[in-house]
Amino acid sequence: MSFKGEHILSVSQFDRDTIQHVFTIARKMQPYASRQKRTKVLEGAILGNLFFEPSTRTRVSFGCAFNLLGGEVRETTGMESSALSKGESLFDTARVISSYSDVIAMRHPQAGSVAEFALGSRVPVLNGGDGANEHPTQALLDLFTIERELASSGQSIDGMHIAMVGDLKFGRTVHSLSKLLKLYKNLRFTLIAPKELAMPDEIVSAIENASHQVTVTDVLEGNLNADIVYQTRIQEERFPSKAEANLYRGKFRLNQEIYTRYCKSNTVIMHPLPRDSRVEANELDNDLNLNPNLAIFRQADNGILVRMALFALTLGVDDIISNYECAVPWYSNKHSG
Amino acid sequence: MSFKGEHILSVSQFDRDTIQHVFTIARKMQPYASRQKRTKVLEGAILGNLFFEPSTRTRVSFGCAFNLLGGEVRETTGMESSALSKGESLFDTARVISSYSDVIAMRHPQAGSVAEFALGSRVPVLNGGDGANEHPTQALLDLFTIERELASSGQSIDGMHIAMVGDLKFGRTVHSLSKLLKLYKNLRFTLIAPKELAMPDEIVSAIENASHQVTVTDVLEGNLNADIVYQTRIQEERFPSKAEANLYRGKFRLNQEIYTRYCKSNTVIMHPLPRDSRVEANELDNDLNLNPNLAIFRQADNGILVRMALFALTLGVDDIISNYECAVPWYSNKHSG
Amino acid sequence: MSFKGEHILSVSQFDRDTIQHVFTIARKMQPYASRQKRTKVLEGAILGNLFFEPSTRTRVSFGCAFNLLGGEVRETTGMESSALSKGESLFDTARVISSYSDVIAMRHPQAGSVAEFALGSRVPVLNGGDGANEHPTQALLDLFTIERELASSGQSIDGMHIAMVGDLKFGRTVHSLSKLLKLYKNLRFTLIAPKELAMPDEIVSAIENASHQVTVTDVLEGNLNADIVYQTRIQEERFPSKAEANLYRGKFRLNQEIYTRYCKSNTVIMHPLPRDSRVEANELDNDLNLNPNLAIFRQADNGILVRMALFALTLGVDDIISNYECAVPWYSNKHSG
Repeated sequence: MSFKGEHILSVSQFDRDTIQHVFTIARKMQPYASRQKRTKVLEGAILGNLFFEPSTRTRVSFGCAFNLLGGEVRETTGMESSALSKGESLFDTARVISSYSDVIAMRHPQAGSVAEFALGSRVPVLNGGDGANEHPTQALLDLFTIERELASSGQSIDGMHIAMVGDLKFGRTVHSLSKLLKLYKNLRFTLIAPKELAMPDEIVSAIENASHQVTVTDVLEGNLNADIVYQTRIQEERFPSKAEANLYRGKFRLNQEIYTRYCKSNTVIMHPLPRDSRVEANELDNDLNLNPNLAIFRQADNGILVRMALFALTLGVDDIISNYECAVPWYSNKHSG
Repeated sequence: MSFKGEHILSVSQFDRDTIQHVFTIARKMQPYASRQKRTKVLEGAILGNLFFEPSTRTRVSFGCAFNLLGGEVRETTGMESSALSKGESLFDTARVISSYSDVIAMRHPQAGSVAEFALGSRVPVLNGGDGANEHPTQALLDLFTIERELASSGQSIDGMHIAMVGDLKFGRTVHSLSKLLKLYKNLRFTLIAPKELAMPDEIVSAIENASHQVTVTDVLEGNLNADIVYQTRIQEERFPSKAEANLYRGKFRLNQEIYTRYCKSNTVIMHPLPRDSRVEANELDNDLNLNPNLAIFRQADNGILVRMALFALTLGVDDIISNYECAVPWYSNKHSG
Repeated sequence: MSFKGEHILSVSQFDRDTIQHVFTIARKMQPYASRQKRTKVLEGAILGNLFFEPSTRTRVSFGCAFNLLGGEVRETTGMESSALSKGESLFDTARVISSYSDVIAMRHPQAGSVAEFALGSRVPVLNGGDGANEHPTQALLDLFTIERELASSGQSIDGMHIAMVGDLKFGRTVHSLSKLLKLYKNLRFTLIAPKELAMPDEIVSAIENASHQVTVTDVLEGNLNADIVYQTRIQEERFPSKAEANLYRGKFRLNQEIYTRYCKSNTVIMHPLPRDSRVEANELDNDLNLNPNLAIFRQADNGILVRMALFALTLGVDDIISNYECAVPWYSNKHSG
């Protein structure tokens, strides 16, 4: 059960045991992320943070996770400046960049590209999203959040009820999360989407074949009494036109009034972020910001922990992090949570 | 008089006492900036350097100031790659990014945006410029430069004479500097601008109401015998068209000949930089580079000191910087100044 | 023979003695680059990595080389966000940015720009490529690779035979490499290019005047039995149009079959990278990846060593690197090569 020197390319690499191992390490990262102390275990190590498709949030999350372990980050954003546009193969890019760094996090618009890149890499590669294909660190942080949120009310993932809402066709995160969730037992899935944006059949079948219960619907009202409501964004960039995306934008809005009427008193609200807060979308109304069950920012916080864990595991330092601990001399209000 | 955990959003947060406190800390930063020694006080801390509007100089200045205190920098440049373009609110971006970093420096094209962002941030936010609104670190470094330059000839800010030249309408820096200067006593302001680009009335009134003397003119010649001449750039990006900006470009050029004829022998020349050295503008001729009173590069140097001071103060380490001192083993010719 | 405080602008600064000095230091960098140990000699130092023309590979190589010595990197990519586009002179940019950093690496599209910049810089400037003019670190890493590859079969540079192939007119790297090679003795150059893309006359003359033997041809077959075959990319960006570049693309392809037929059994294959692997170009076929004499990725590895050496030399720490050595606690498979 070691990830030392391994690539992290797909959720299909994980089973319940390895997931729990990652989560155990992730929990150990909390004191460093909340600045009770810091660690220099990766001082001098270099992360190649290669974002051939821009994504501020994920890029900065990987970079900060590496900094929090003491390492340095070299990075690239976008395609136009890269040798790939001069006809270089992903294999060549990988051979070169991997000789410069100790580990690589990579996002690329093309499905399968990160795995292809990994074939040429001399160091572990973490998939930060390859087009419509995979985004395993997002799925792991979502699952980690579900486990933590349920645990705080004494529940476990086994037996829970999750409602997934919105663009379930193009939403990569709900696909990957579903693949992880089906490793657990006796779940109930309520899949709420416009018919044209329904969850792909093969994913629904895979969930059902793992003996979970699935309800498919295009109605929000009356279908939200779940333990977890996972709201998503219309993936405008995957639609043929903005006009077509607009047909669906704003169809399933969630606000405090709807929450009060249809959710359980402790239903946890999640979202892969960014949430579209423009008036025509308003996926999760700002009036939910005061609802203690809105877990969307805790998801982002958990993303740091999970990415720190994956760096520590692939670089084989998960056991020695505390050997390199130091005090934090600057002011921080993060200790309290 | 502590800035620990505070945002730095506007010059209006400062009074003479707090300004002097910032400047005292800034002066203590000199040996680190000039490489006589270095400090690791912020080793392991992360600056989120968020430039949603590009600005190489200011971005790099904030980043280097943080590095000089021992910290790490994660950054972002431009809008297009950001979640803001997917409809994310500034509040959400702030909640997420502030969970990744220990302090944030931010520039954004929209007035008020940085203050709005700060509402969602869990860590101190330093305004690096929000559109035509505020750029407080620039105003502070300008004032710090004025104090230092005058001190070298035995003068103080109280009682001094400053001439501001050029685009006083759109030039954010002269607005903010004026707000700080009116905290001092018995100043003389000569405001030299084309009528269409004159200093806004409310700023002139505020200066006058603070009992300072103001002369408004559109003539350069004969109005330069001040202690400080603060030249500015035509803010082309704030004009409706380049053609309109061109009407004013190059109207008030300063060179050594004009300096000799109209300035005092020790008039200090300042400019917020970049100076436009294209022949059609030539705001400050290159023949002034040999003039010891040309303070424009000392302004840039002082920017590092002021930004280091603000980081140290907001993170509450201003008292312990020297506890984390180390030797500089590499060659530098900066010791001598 | 000290480079302390010097700029590295051109290959013409070097003679055989200084080249050997750089290479001696570069060889000492191997254990740090291959992660047997690390060094903190430049901890706290700041590299200003200024890429006014984008280049992922070279930018990341400079940045990682500096990180491997323990230093921090602040960087900028592209022109549009820079003050240069607001009319700032290179001198001003240099005065400002050099006050922020300890050493600068710079790429700029305009020939001569880096030398002009260096005039205003207060810290050493390393030329990372100035248009069609110079790219000295590439030439040095190429020469270092040639020396190492030949040494492994008991040869030296003196007396060797090199075939340069492809776009020898616009290919900056072959120009600079030729200037360095002519410092050596009794070389044989075979210059293989379409007539329209032949090596410029003045370079051919300079080689001949240094008593080397030159063969000029536009035929690949029969001209590859050299010690080194240096393949190049059609420099599309230097042609008036893509269509014109396409006339020459793919004219001189090298694959294992051609290698077996025309090369010596130990002919070393080099390329400045990126190699254009698109089917219409295919400069070096992927079937050469298994050929142990394909040195293109060792070139990239050597680039790190040479750039580390130049940083160490210009900052005067080449003698004390091992005083700041630490262990590498994370997993790496680079030790073995």
